Formats: sequence, structure tokens, C-alpha cells
Amino acid sequence: MTVEQEGIGLRFADVTAAQERIAPYVHRTPVLVSHALDGLLGCQLHFKCENFQRVGAFKARGAHNAVLQLRDGEARCGVVTHSSGNHGAALALAARNRGIPAFVVMPTSVPRVKQESVARYGAQVTLCEPSLAARERTAAEVIARTGAQMVHPYDDPRVMAGQGTAALELIEDVADLDLIVCPVGGGGLLSGVAVTTRALRPGARVIGAEPAMADDAHRSLREGRRVGAGQPQTIADGLRGALSERTFTVIRACADDILTVSEAGIVSAMRLVWEVLKIIIEPSAAVPVALLMERPDIARGQRVGVILTGGNVDLAALPWRS
Amino acid sequence: MTVEQEGIGLRFADVTAAQERIAPYVHRTPVLVSHALDGLLGCQLHFKCENFQRVGAFKARGAHNAVLQLRDGEARCGVVTHSSGNHGAALALAARNRGIPAFVVMPTSVPRVKQESVARYGAQVTLCEPSLAARERTAAEVIARTGAQMVHPYDDPRVMAGQGTAALELIEDVADLDLIVCPVGGGGLLSGVAVTTRALRPGARVIGAEPAMADDAHRSLREGRRVGAGQPQTIADGLRGALSERTFTVIRACADDILTVSEAGIVSAMRLVWEVLKIIIEPSAAVPVALLMERPDIARGQRVGVILTGGNVDLAALPWRS
Repeated sequence: MTVEQEGIGLRFADVTAAQERIAPYVHRTPVLVSHALDGLLGCQLHFKCENFQRVGAFKARGAHNAVLQLRDGEARCGVVTHSSGNHGAALALAARNRGIPAFVVMPTSVPRVKQESVARYGAQVTLCEPSLAARERTAAEVIARTGAQMVHPYDDPRVMAGQGTAALELIEDVADLDLIVCPVGGGGLLSGVAVTTRALRPGARVIGAEPAMADDAHRSLREGRRVGAGQPQTIADGLRGALSERTFTVIRACADDILTVSEAGIVSAMRLVWEVLKIIIEPSAAVPVALLMERPDIARGQRVGVILTGGNVDLAALPWRS
Repeated sequence: MTVEQEGIGLRFADVTAAQERIAPYVHRTPVLVSHALDGLLGCQLHFKCENFQRVGAFKARGAHNAVLQLRDGEARCGVVTHSSGNHGAALALAARNRGIPAFVVMPTSVPRVKQESVARYGAQVTLCEPSLAARERTAAEVIARTGAQMVHPYDDPRVMAGQGTAALELIEDVADLDLIVCPVGGGGLLSGVAVTTRALRPGARVIGAEPAMADDAHRSLREGRRVGAGQPQTIADGLRGALSERTFTVIRACADDILTVSEAGIVSAMRLVWEVLKIIIEPSAAVPVALLMERPDIARGQRVGVILTGGNVDLAALPWRS
């Protein structure tokens, strides 16, 4: 696929610029392999471990890329966002690194561990009802009160470019990938990953993995127009957002497909990664692994990159029983 | 401390020979660091991640070093051991790599995940009562029946030397360590670690960490003679064994101290590592971390190496509540 990246609102050059900009503040995360998982899933897997990233999620990339680009006058009153958790913690850290305040609006449905994390990084947290409308309304109130700059969790080219650096590193570290799979919620990560992959490895496919219970991106791609998300109840709490016009445009142009997985599949995949790789990933991060388990046909015999997006999970409330 | 290593039954040269011998069969595991944990514990921590080792534990090192040294005539009838789990899986893998049978005697108290792992690597499993006497008696019966060679989980210089390679890699990878902490059960790992550290970094201290509920090694060192283990009930299921005369001799000569930790401390430490490092470790592996939490005085401001010994834990039976 060839695309005119200028026209879709995100260029590969934005991703390479982001990489240089954020390098002092984020980890270059490791890529893990596992012969045992390769055998189970019938492909050669390369796991980009963003669960080891600062704040425990890839969101540190986009948040830093946005905050570091603010002019001093813009930055003075701080930054604000509404977030399912990881972006809030990431924005809090990026603001702290820049020495400015951060205000984070979080729905009450966010896991306790993520709420605490945001507060620990020094942000002022405002809780709201768990709906996109309530999040946006509450954030607007905070902006009116503080004059802070909005850094949207995904509907922001600076954030999308920052998230793309995860794929940039993965492609630099692993030769000849045939397929890259990442989760899709609001589409910020998938946008950055797709643009990066098109530029560096045009023959490779990029597939977004989405919970069937929060399948707005899947349906939007199928129908050729954005459909709303409703109030999805998936266990993958980081993936309840809906595509924005910006991310939809990029994903339509640069991603190959978006496929969905079951809730049971997400739990099984999460447990499999914990047991075999011995690393903690959160439910949202398990979604691409679930896709490879439920749809082995899309990857069989191929070299597959999987972005394990985060590791922030309430250890006291795991989705399996003793 | 200078020791005449010839006289204690384990030489550093045995460890370097082991490293070369086992290299094709085991992972050189990564060393992780965490600024967050450094801040919490007041020292500079370097975690040697043997939870990422083959079979999920450092035991792969000693088992391979033993099995690879068998003469063909000895190896023909296979190998046998009694094990709390990880050594059994390790011996099964080493035997499979050599193409010989493995027989593993396991107490019924071993976590299911470890029993399954041993079987998955192709060993014939015989369950027995959870006592050292029952384990030894059942192993003797298997030997009488099969002619297999005993590879003891720790009372074997080949095993002790193999385990020491974990410290060898750690010291190669991290300069200027002041202190190395590892768990102690039967003392095979601590023996290898202590001999290696004495040889490569004589000024560094080596401290064994032991559950207070299974403190035979601590008391043996204090009293200057081996005391029995009884039937300890610690959650650290890999550390219920007692020192042998061999390991006691090496540890007395080369380790600096053995200190104990509470059961609650082990659970807290395990959860802390899961939450902050985002990696899975088993209770036995959390024991050195618990020591640094309960006794920060022994490490304050120092460069500390911690051997995270394994990551095999029943995810459905975690020691904390929702």
C-alpha cells in the first residue's frame, strides 16, 4: 500500500522526530521471544514489552511527545486529559518532567491501581461518571478553571506520533517482520504503528485487535464510516474508547484490518503470557495475543511482532478463580 | 575472606567449567533495574531474572551441569531425583536434551503448576508424602527398579557448580556489586554463588535469605553444626529443604551470613515485584527481596545483586485477597 502521508494527518517523519524528542524520558523496551509460545501459536513471535515502559505502558511515549512540544507560554498553566488510566499516569509523569501541573479526569470505573498511579505521579485527579460524554464535559470544566492545555489520550497527532515509536523500535530490533498486531481502543497506537510500518516495511501487514464487546473500530472499518462505541463493558479497560476522525483516517489509509476477540479469549491470553513469559500484562495488552490464539490462520508460519501495551492490573482482582 | 576452595568440595573452576558446558542449553538471563524499587528500598538493585530461565528457574543450570557430565554408561538408564518442583522440571529437560529417561519423585504438597511442568518435560512422576524421609525412600525404590543415576537437587557438587553460574553472569554483567542476596533452601545455589563471589569479587558480601519458618540454615550457621529442618510449612515451597553436609561446609566457608524473613514479608515482596517490575516471581524468589524490605540496614546505599530464582506459581491460588 502506498499512501500520501501528508494528506492523512500523520507522517512517518513525525514518528522519527518523536523518537529523538522523547528518548531521554522513556525506556527503549526489550523484545522477548518464547519457543514455547511459538510452538503453541504456530508462528514466530516477538513481544515488544511496553509493560516495562515508564508508568507501565506505551502511553509514556505519546504523552511525552505532546508535552515536550508545548511552547513555554502554553505549558505554564499545565496540561489536562481524561483517561482510562495509563494515559493519565503518562501525562502526569511528562508534566512532572517538564515541571508543570497535570490535571487528570478519570471515570470511576478505572482500576484502583491506575487511579493510584496517576496520583502518585503528582497529577490532580478528578473522578467522573464512566461515559465519554462525562469525561469530556469534566475535562472542559477543568480547562475553564485552570487554563490547562488539553492532551487528548489519542485524538492528537503528537500523541499518535509518539505511540508510533514503539513500532519504530520493534522494526529496528527485529528484521523481516511479516505482521504487526496491536490493540485498538481510540486508535492512537494503531495509527502510529500503521504509519511507521508502511514507511519502514511496506510489505508487512498491520492488524488491530479489538474486544468484540468494544468493536467500534472493527465496525467503522467495515462500514467505511465511524460508528460510536456506546459504553462497552470489556475487561480490556484501556480499549473502551472510540476512534476519532483523525485516527479513523490514518487507520483506514495505513492499517490492513481490525479483528475482534472474545472476553474469554482475552483472559486466557493474559494468563498464558503470565504463565509462559513470566511477565505481567494487563487485559488490554492481552488482546493481540488472544487474536493470535483465536485466529491462528492470520499468522501461521509468519514472523509476528506483538505490542504488549501495558502491565497495570489490580493483582487483588484477577479474572480467574482458584 | 580467603578460602582454600579445594578443601571445601567446590572450586570456582568448577563454576567456570559449568558455564561453558551448559551454555548451549540454558539462557543467559537479563538483569533488570528499577529506579522505583531503588527508591523504596534505599539501595541500587540489580535483579538477575532466573524466572526467565529454561523451565522458569535457575535449577536448569545445575541439572544440565550434572546430566552433561554423566558417562554414557551411567546415563543409559536415566536419571532420578526428588524435588519440590523446579529441579524436577530441570532434570527432565536436561535428560530430554541428552536423550535419556528422567524419573522424578515429588511430594504431594508441590504446587500443581510445578507437577504439570515436570510431566510436560517428559519425566515419569512418582508422588510421595511431603517429608524428606519419604522423598529419599521413594527415590531409592525408583533407583532399585530402574538403575537410574541420582541427581540430588542440591547435595551434589555438579549441581552446586551449575547454580553458581547465575552469580558468575551477574558479576560479569554488573560492575562493583557490594552485596549479593539469594534464597537458601538446601543451599545448592548459595554454595555456588558464595564460591563464585569469593573468587571474582572477594570484597562483596554474600547473604542467604531464608524463611523464618524454615530457618535450619540460619540456625546451623549460628550454632556451627547442622540442625534439621523438620517439616516447614513456609509459602516458599522451594525452600523447605535442609542443608547437607556438603552445602553447609561451603556456605560456612564462603557466605557471610544467613538471615530470615517473615511469611507476610515474603508475600509483600512478591507482590511488590509483580507490581513494580511487572514480572512473575514465585514465593521462594521473593525471599531475598523480603529481606531487603525487612532489614534495609544490610544494604543501604549499596550496589546489590538479587537472584530472582524462579517464576513458577499457581496463578489461581495467589496469597492475597480481592
